[in-house]
Amino acid sequence: MAEFVKKAAVIGGGVIGGGWVARLMTAGYDVSVFDPHPQAEKYINDVIARNEAAMLRLWPGQTTGQRGKVSYAKTIGEAVDGAVLVQESVPERLDLKQTIHQEIGEAITDAAIIGSSTSGLLPSDIQRMMPHADRMMVAHPYNPVYLLPVVEIVGGAKTSADAIDTAMKLYTDIGMKPVHIAKEIDAFVGDRLLEAMWRESLWLVKEGVATAGTIDDIVRNGLGMRFAQMGQFMTYRLGGGEGGFRHFLEQFEPSLKWPWTKLMDVPEWTDELVNDIVSQSDDHTGGLSVGELETIRDNNLVDFLKVLRRNNWGAGTALKNPADMNAQQPEQMDATANPLITWQGNVHEDWADYNNHMTEFRYLEVFSMATDKLLFGCGAGPAYVKEGFSFYTVETHIRHVDEIAIGEPIHVETRLINHDGKKLHLYHDMYGGGDNRLLATGEHMLLHVDMNAGRAAPMPDHISTAFAQIADAQKDLPAPDAAGAAIGMKRK
Amino acid sequence: MAEFVKKAAVIGGGVIGGGWVARLMTAGYDVSVFDPHPQAEKYINDVIARNEAAMLRLWPGQTTGQRGKVSYAKTIGEAVDGAVLVQESVPERLDLKQTIHQEIGEAITDAAIIGSSTSGLLPSDIQRMMPHADRMMVAHPYNPVYLLPVVEIVGGAKTSADAIDTAMKLYTDIGMKPVHIAKEIDAFVGDRLLEAMWRESLWLVKEGVATAGTIDDIVRNGLGMRFAQMGQFMTYRLGGGEGGFRHFLEQFEPSLKWPWTKLMDVPEWTDELVNDIVSQSDDHTGGLSVGELETIRDNNLVDFLKVLRRNNWGAGTALKNPADMNAQQPEQMDATANPLITWQGNVHEDWADYNNHMTEFRYLEVFSMATDKLLFGCGAGPAYVKEGFSFYTVETHIRHVDEIAIGEPIHVETRLINHDGKKLHLYHDMYGGGDNRLLATGEHMLLHVDMNAGRAAPMPDHISTAFAQIADAQKDLPAPDAAGAAIGMKRK
Repeated sequence: MAEFVKKAAVIGGGVIGGGWVARLMTAGYDVSVFDPHPQAEKYINDVIARNEAAMLRLWPGQTTGQRGKVSYAKTIGEAVDGAVLVQESVPERLDLKQTIHQEIGEAITDAAIIGSSTSGLLPSDIQRMMPHADRMMVAHPYNPVYLLPVVEIVGGAKTSADAIDTAMKLYTDIGMKPVHIAKEIDAFVGDRLLEAMWRESLWLVKEGVATAGTIDDIVRNGLGMRFAQMGQFMTYRLGGGEGGFRHFLEQFEPSLKWPWTKLMDVPEWTDELVNDIVSQSDDHTGGLSVGELETIRDNNLVDFLKVLRRNNWGAGTALKNPADMNAQQPEQMDATANPLITWQGNVHEDWADYNNHMTEFRYLEVFSMATDKLLFGCGAGPAYVKEGFSFYTVETHIRHVDEIAIGEPIHVETRLINHDGKKLHLYHDMYGGGDNRLLATGEHMLLHVDMNAGRAAPMPDHISTAFAQIADAQKDLPAPDAAGAAIGMKRK
Repeated sequence: MAEFVKKAAVIGGGVIGGGWVARLMTAGYDVSVFDPHPQAEKYINDVIARNEAAMLRLWPGQTTGQRGKVSYAKTIGEAVDGAVLVQESVPERLDLKQTIHQEIGEAITDAAIIGSSTSGLLPSDIQRMMPHADRMMVAHPYNPVYLLPVVEIVGGAKTSADAIDTAMKLYTDIGMKPVHIAKEIDAFVGDRLLEAMWRESLWLVKEGVATAGTIDDIVRNGLGMRFAQMGQFMTYRLGGGEGGFRHFLEQFEPSLKWPWTKLMDVPEWTDELVNDIVSQSDDHTGGLSVGELETIRDNNLVDFLKVLRRNNWGAGTALKNPADMNAQQPEQMDATANPLITWQGNVHEDWADYNNHMTEFRYLEVFSMATDKLLFGCGAGPAYVKEGFSFYTVETHIRHVDEIAIGEPIHVETRLINHDGKKLHLYHDMYGGGDNRLLATGEHMLLHVDMNAGRAAPMPDHISTAFAQIADAQKDLPAPDAAGAAIGMKRK
């Protein structure tokens, strides 16, 4: 495809069609829409606006100048003209889909792919009457289409292998995860799983065992977080521990016959089925050991929890800070310690730059945490901030001395250079690595602020006294070399 | 509980018991373990080590000095002595659980809560022969127990309401999400949902529709990401759009009768069932509109995708950067623009400090992105880095002038102060808010580095030329005030 034209047609707007428009535009496609609904353009613009908000969050700092353009066609023929992808998302009625696909088929060329967003109709049925049926397949996405990567690819009786291959590549290229499903079956795969859970959930509500809210809470605080990164088979693979997946599956066999769901028509448990599952799961996990998978799982779960805590949502609302849970044994800072260590930990995986070293701004994050530790230890912690007072950083000077790789240990030693009634002048040395070498220095000027009055204010005595105690303990230390230095370079 | 003692007993180690030990220690509980297995201590130590790695990631910079202690008891009586929580996680055999709980009941006082981690046995059966049965209930967690918050609380015939209340508070206090299930039923709620999906999945594998890997990919790239933050009912509530949940549910009715799963014994679809679901879902979503929920969903999904992209896992591996997808229309920087705008966007939700203003180190993140933009525009982008060359920041000087709230627009204007063969001296002004006021300045010294040789190296001509072009366009600008200034404060 030397002259690959990025043009797509979306037939049928709504939540799904609009999602396709947004995703395709983001991938640089010009999109022509056909939808006779008088409000179609408004609905689609709403979805485009949601997508733009999401993309700003997903790719911060990126401009939107490269988006494809959207236009509205008066006929299907006009919409699909020149399109390499035609995505149909009209209502779920077979006769309607058949008619629409016949029109699409009459207007396209052999270069196009036709994907139907149907949730459950069979591609062989939809493509029965159309020309170019070899180019048509089910390409079933999940809402919101502009964010969730999966798209189920299901060919019908007339679909060509070449069209499937082209579609797999095309959907991958727009940032999706196309999954080719080997056999046509009602509702394909994802919707069958959803439907099984849904029917079971309806029974639980009907019989008064649990409410819609209780069921959602159980899902989003537990099994859903596992599904989001591993799915069910891989999660169970971990349940087996080092005993292996086969051992775990064998433990499951008896419960298959128990009345644990209303789905009692269970498949026969044969060696062949177990062998298939184990070898398919081996392939899918690509040689990762149970221990490695557990580490991946835990990292993902922790990062999900951090996201949800920040967003104050779902499982993030249950979390409790270990420091708060154990207030009976408050962590104290020994102000007279020399050196005064204000932070220690490891370089986190999510602090990497593209060379797998700690990236620039994370140095300041660590210095900022070290400053907080000092302030908390001197009586200016969260409770003090709640009273309406805080320390604001007004100036920062960082010198980078050496790199540090992800996972390496680091720590920060802090000196109080100066303090008066309103100002605080701090100096941090960051050390790390096996040889405990100097990585960076951070020099910071902070101002004590009355946040309600919106201006600098004198510190109370108990905080001044705490600073004085540190200054006294550090009075014999020589001044750090870089304190007060300006940035500059010799002019040629 | 004026003299609340943080002591717990864990009966039965293994993956689940070990997870309880780790979670309870983190919450400051001293934990006494009873498990006659010779390897119990080793297994539990492995889980504790996993938990510590996870807590370091979840609560960076926190020390572990406040953990409770773990000890190993020789008898159940010794383990439960003085414990306010006894958590049993022995193998899933009713006779074994009955015997163990009888021993526990004989040794505890009325102050204790006894939770069984059983996945499916009924509490009324387990508690049949024990003293203090009123204190015993199912408290069913999900693996990994130290990370997933949910715990299903199910009372038996003899369980007291007081014990349930105490347990709900106790599990909440250790950072979990206890969910009280109204009726005893085989496998409770979460495992019923899992079992329904599992049985359906086995059919799909058995019939050759999909493999274990395909099924997991569909789950983790789609429905699993929705479940992780909203569950199924709330997700479907959004599917209804502004038409409302009732409308959406009504659309679902016919498909209940379709052969979309092997679970064909569906509940009767009555007005009463629909009313229950709608009112339960109304309660659970607490007045949030569909639009508000969509925003929450999108923010959560974007943040999950960012996590998974960083971890190079699951849905994160499908993502494509819009800038890369549309390389045919590369974004150009006009080096002669004046001012030279190198970043624009909004202050993201996850950049907040505790006062909902942009936190300190995010200023440097924005300056860092602005620097990258300038470097990329001058020919030192990712492709150049792949060749083994890069610019390293050696010094940074930030002045904070004003605060900026979350969601406000900001932009960065950049000046080239100086450049020679190896060094680059940049100056950024960050402006923002409705009045476009100055927020901060960033001054940076960068060094051009040959990464393979591990030392500074002269820049190639095409990059020097690009910098010279910028310098020429900016030659009439006055030098910024702060360039070259040192940090300092007047001594008293």
